[in-house]
Amino acid sequence: MQIVKTIEEVRAAVRAWRADGLSVGLVPTMGFLHEGHRSLIERSVADNDRTVVSVFVNPIQFGPSEDLEAYPRDIERDKTVVEGAGGDLIFNPEPSEMYPPHFTTFVDTTETTELLCGARRAGHFRGVCTVVSKLFNIVGPDRAYFGQKDAQQLATVRRFVRDLNFDVEIVACPIVREADGLAKSSRNTYLSTDERKAALILSESLRQGKAAIERGERSAQAVIDVIADSLNKEPLARVDYVEAVDLDNVQRVERIEENTLVAIAVYIGKTRLIDNFIWK
Amino acid sequence: MQIVKTIEEVRAAVRAWRADGLSVGLVPTMGFLHEGHRSLIERSVADNDRTVVSVFVNPIQFGPSEDLEAYPRDIERDKTVVEGAGGDLIFNPEPSEMYPPHFTTFVDTTETTELLCGARRAGHFRGVCTVVSKLFNIVGPDRAYFGQKDAQQLATVRRFVRDLNFDVEIVACPIVREADGLAKSSRNTYLSTDERKAALILSESLRQGKAAIERGERSAQAVIDVIADSLNKEPLARVDYVEAVDLDNVQRVERIEENTLVAIAVYIGKTRLIDNFIWK
Repeated sequence: MQIVKTIEEVRAAVRAWRADGLSVGLVPTMGFLHEGHRSLIERSVADNDRTVVSVFVNPIQFGPSEDLEAYPRDIERDKTVVEGAGGDLIFNPEPSEMYPPHFTTFVDTTETTELLCGARRAGHFRGVCTVVSKLFNIVGPDRAYFGQKDAQQLATVRRFVRDLNFDVEIVACPIVREADGLAKSSRNTYLSTDERKAALILSESLRQGKAAIERGERSAQAVIDVIADSLNKEPLARVDYVEAVDLDNVQRVERIEENTLVAIAVYIGKTRLIDNFIWK
Repeated sequence: MQIVKTIEEVRAAVRAWRADGLSVGLVPTMGFLHEGHRSLIERSVADNDRTVVSVFVNPIQFGPSEDLEAYPRDIERDKTVVEGAGGDLIFNPEPSEMYPPHFTTFVDTTETTELLCGARRAGHFRGVCTVVSKLFNIVGPDRAYFGQKDAQQLATVRRFVRDLNFDVEIVACPIVREADGLAKSSRNTYLSTDERKAALILSESLRQGKAAIERGERSAQAVIDVIADSLNKEPLARVDYVEAVDLDNVQRVERIEENTLVAIAVYIGKTRLIDNFIWK
């Protein structure tokens, strides 16, 4: 397993693999890798001859009042995770390698980024689309792997890949959860012991929403109310949003149909957590 | 020489060439090909094993009050030009092939697009960056060819290619002129006989500006004044801009230095023409 810091080193490695006719998978991450990331890497290793994992806390997807500085980093642990999952190369650039002086170009997509996190985190998805476009052009992968936990990000990546004709297959992987149901996230590390317990309310409330649909409820508002009512019972939780949207367009739906995404964002103390399910 | 309408056909052709280890050049055009385009195609044919010419009047780079509908088209003549210059494939898509329903993604770059045509044609360079990004992802060329006549476009393409790490070499080709000095342009076809004569004032005024620099003038404003004074003597001409900018950043300079771009846009009747020179 190789770890490189420069774009030229990534290109040289991929060029050598391509000369041998090997396929390449990419797992873009911000590091501090957990079991969710590990499942993406393992899936890429299963699908491709070689797997590149990028580890880059991308400054341009953080707002001015967000947690760029505080975001957890541990490249040594990341190496162990990538190696254990069978990855071949970590790309861990400095911000200056990715954003040289006079960097002034952005990739932006409007429809899928209008609601949910896009409405609350100005410029976030522009930062995501830009860095993922760069990574696609640097690595030139056959396939790229994204977690279903970041459902709006996944829909947004799918949209810009289609619109700009990137020749990359986007592969979605299921949410990985702790034993008690909390979705794995690098930001879970921010939680105190009490908050960690309170954070269970996210998956529990989604479970109640899903149960209502299984009982036959099809009104999006009714399902949203079930989830919001459950969340509001937890004193440490503050609801940011509860939404039911079309999985492709990320636009609100009135009825729960196939491919409705039910997504929530909730502050537990100062930590903002997200979770979701897709009704199929 | 092959002509195709769909993205899949382009990809299939390029895949077959790549399997044979052949290099690929791309010449992006809006068609109605003239000697300027021909020189780009010939350069690509000299540099690469195979050359793709895209012929696509890109709607998203035209403003609402611009000449999208009137823009001249003649695909039969274009075929003859591409064939004569040694090109291998024309990609001539319908707008719906390039911009499917729910198309919502754009590539935009700010610094190089702030002045000159960027200041006057809102959204123009966003449309250019977006379509050229798409063409790069569709064709996957080793090299792409652009004319120096569209100097701001060239600087803008260089910038977004650098910023987004497109693995494409950008090759600039010199301005091709009519015998009397008028820069070749598909829009020259709009000119009446009188306007065609008056249009000579663009290259003639630039010649006077260049002569002033050759005589030792280094003040950008003084050179701009020489050019503007000359342009203003032509009754059919209305100056849109006369500017001296840095060739890379397209920001104004006070002194004429190496790599200063002196660029003009002038209405001759209703037709807007551009021309420029680079001081080296």
